[in-house]
Amino acid sequence: MISDQKIFNHESELKLQSGATLGPITLAYETYGSLNPARTNAILICHAWSGDAHLAGASSTGESRPGWWEEAVGPGKAFDTDKYFVVCSNVLGGCNGSTGPASVNPATGKPYALSFPIVTIADMVDAQALLSDHLGIVYWLCVAGGSMGGMQALQWSVSYPKRLRSAIVLASTARLSAQTIALNEVPRQAIYADPNWRKGEYYEGARPDSGLAVARMIGHITFLSDASMREKFGRRMRINTHYGYTFESEFEVETYLTYRGNQFTKRFDANSFLYLSKAMDYFDLSYGLPSLADAFRKTTAKFLVMSYTSDWLYPSAQSKELVRALLQNDIDATYVEINSDYGHDAFLLEVDRLAELARDFLKRV
Amino acid sequence: MISDQKIFNHESELKLQSGATLGPITLAYETYGSLNPARTNAILICHAWSGDAHLAGASSTGESRPGWWEEAVGPGKAFDTDKYFVVCSNVLGGCNGSTGPASVNPATGKPYALSFPIVTIADMVDAQALLSDHLGIVYWLCVAGGSMGGMQALQWSVSYPKRLRSAIVLASTARLSAQTIALNEVPRQAIYADPNWRKGEYYEGARPDSGLAVARMIGHITFLSDASMREKFGRRMRINTHYGYTFESEFEVETYLTYRGNQFTKRFDANSFLYLSKAMDYFDLSYGLPSLADAFRKTTAKFLVMSYTSDWLYPSAQSKELVRALLQNDIDATYVEINSDYGHDAFLLEVDRLAELARDFLKRV
Repeated sequence: MISDQKIFNHESELKLQSGATLGPITLAYETYGSLNPARTNAILICHAWSGDAHLAGASSTGESRPGWWEEAVGPGKAFDTDKYFVVCSNVLGGCNGSTGPASVNPATGKPYALSFPIVTIADMVDAQALLSDHLGIVYWLCVAGGSMGGMQALQWSVSYPKRLRSAIVLASTARLSAQTIALNEVPRQAIYADPNWRKGEYYEGARPDSGLAVARMIGHITFLSDASMREKFGRRMRINTHYGYTFESEFEVETYLTYRGNQFTKRFDANSFLYLSKAMDYFDLSYGLPSLADAFRKTTAKFLVMSYTSDWLYPSAQSKELVRALLQNDIDATYVEINSDYGHDAFLLEVDRLAELARDFLKRV
Repeated sequence: MISDQKIFNHESELKLQSGATLGPITLAYETYGSLNPARTNAILICHAWSGDAHLAGASSTGESRPGWWEEAVGPGKAFDTDKYFVVCSNVLGGCNGSTGPASVNPATGKPYALSFPIVTIADMVDAQALLSDHLGIVYWLCVAGGSMGGMQALQWSVSYPKRLRSAIVLASTARLSAQTIALNEVPRQAIYADPNWRKGEYYEGARPDSGLAVARMIGHITFLSDASMREKFGRRMRINTHYGYTFESEFEVETYLTYRGNQFTKRFDANSFLYLSKAMDYFDLSYGLPSLADAFRKTTAKFLVMSYTSDWLYPSAQSKELVRALLQNDIDATYVEINSDYGHDAFLLEVDRLAELARDFLKRV
């Protein structure tokens, strides 16, 4: 399977939820499989915080990096590219081909940095709707995603109820909890504390890599679970069998976190990281409404909602709250809680169960 | 109840678990109630990571700051100072009156900083044993503590099995898990990343307050639970009712964390924070042994072990593992899991149940 990364340019301005405007905008996207003549087989997959448009497959440019959901997208897989036309775009505010704080502001000829407006999940979805128009897709058979991707799927069902037939929402929530806001705020503070951050104006100098690495390390802890970390690392030491009694990293789990934190700085922009965290913090489908159920008054899509027992970042209780709100609107919603030790990462890893469930669900849509 | 902070000076060197030596050493301690003539009513209470010797009561120096376990220690309370002679000392490696990295190294006339040796929980307990000698206490009726304090109580039962009759271990573990090591490593990295830290040599200049504040914020998240954060903060905003779409802190939970992080820098030394985190990481009573049960072969103390349902830092499974190891040695061990939404902080807050249980337990000892 070969995937081409394409760029969608929207020349006019987008009105944002905050009231600000942004434009022109660019979205990087990839497509897999073929759109059928009736244009009824299109599936939009939305990525999570650190994801991008490269969902699966070898790139035609020869790049061999696997996609972030390689296991779930392809011929015969959960999202079967022999049957469906699958699209994935990098979110607005991102740093992998879409307009974000690292992009050049045409008004100044310099990167936006913190002059980039705050974008929300609804703004990301509005940008995706423009891409859908561009691709000639009147409605999506399904919009699917985990974590922040699930928020986008939910937002689609609220912002464009007639433009999707179904949504698959994994390890996600209809509104960020206090704990998750807290777990976004600390990484932000870690970036702010890096003197190289310079209030976001670092594009011409040293980057706030130390702050971003610490930020990402916090993320990695929240993606795993106590059980998966015990299984994966336990108290195993990297080299020695006896304690060295130093501040050097000795336990495998320390080395893992430091490595992942440092690797992340090579592929992600610290300002983008900040903007996406704020987009999630502001995500609350009940914002300004009497109840969460009121958010779905116009929603007609069928839902498959999945959560994972060891996911403490978006615990099952939040999926159950979402499903209750859907059912209060007589929406056809299936909820499955998967027993898994993988924590939040389970939505990326427990693909066999997802494949079974998604196949049956999409057949029903 | 008036408490006096006293200083215990030990002039000779202490041999540490690492093989290094440290001395002379100083321990700050407070006492409450009176030691009976038979010296059979002494209870040692061990503090957690950020605690100190000021356990309870007004200070005779007129300081009005409440003790860290005010609710549990005093006349008629869980640890009844009308009956018991209660002692609390600041740990070795700490920064509140005991020898630690901020102390002056007599060999150089300058603060130790990172030339301070790594200390372990066993070293802390060895220092407390010297204090016990100084106070003329042959054995403790009970050694009690939560979190890192619980580790010290456990270590007492292993290092000095004949010098304690019982141990009360709250929200703790017999060996740090991978997740908890990870949750110690990230705060360390946050401190290392602060350019003011300067490999620990900051005592004559600006302090690494930004790094320490971020470190502490991570801690505060781990002390609470998803439920307690929802209850305490939810998505409430501090001032506005509408989103401001900025990077300013808008949600109460953000303000709380930032405030607590900043406050902490006024009372705690960043290097001490690092050393105590390492002491916990190295804590594993089964280190070098075939099994955890082997650690308690010589232990004769009675145990009261308590854990809290929403504590995800030291989850109940770890207390259960500890109790199994105790029971394998035919040790008299009572285990109680308390239903609580307070997370790890529950050991400080759920004092009514503790009072009931501790009263009955101590009567039995």
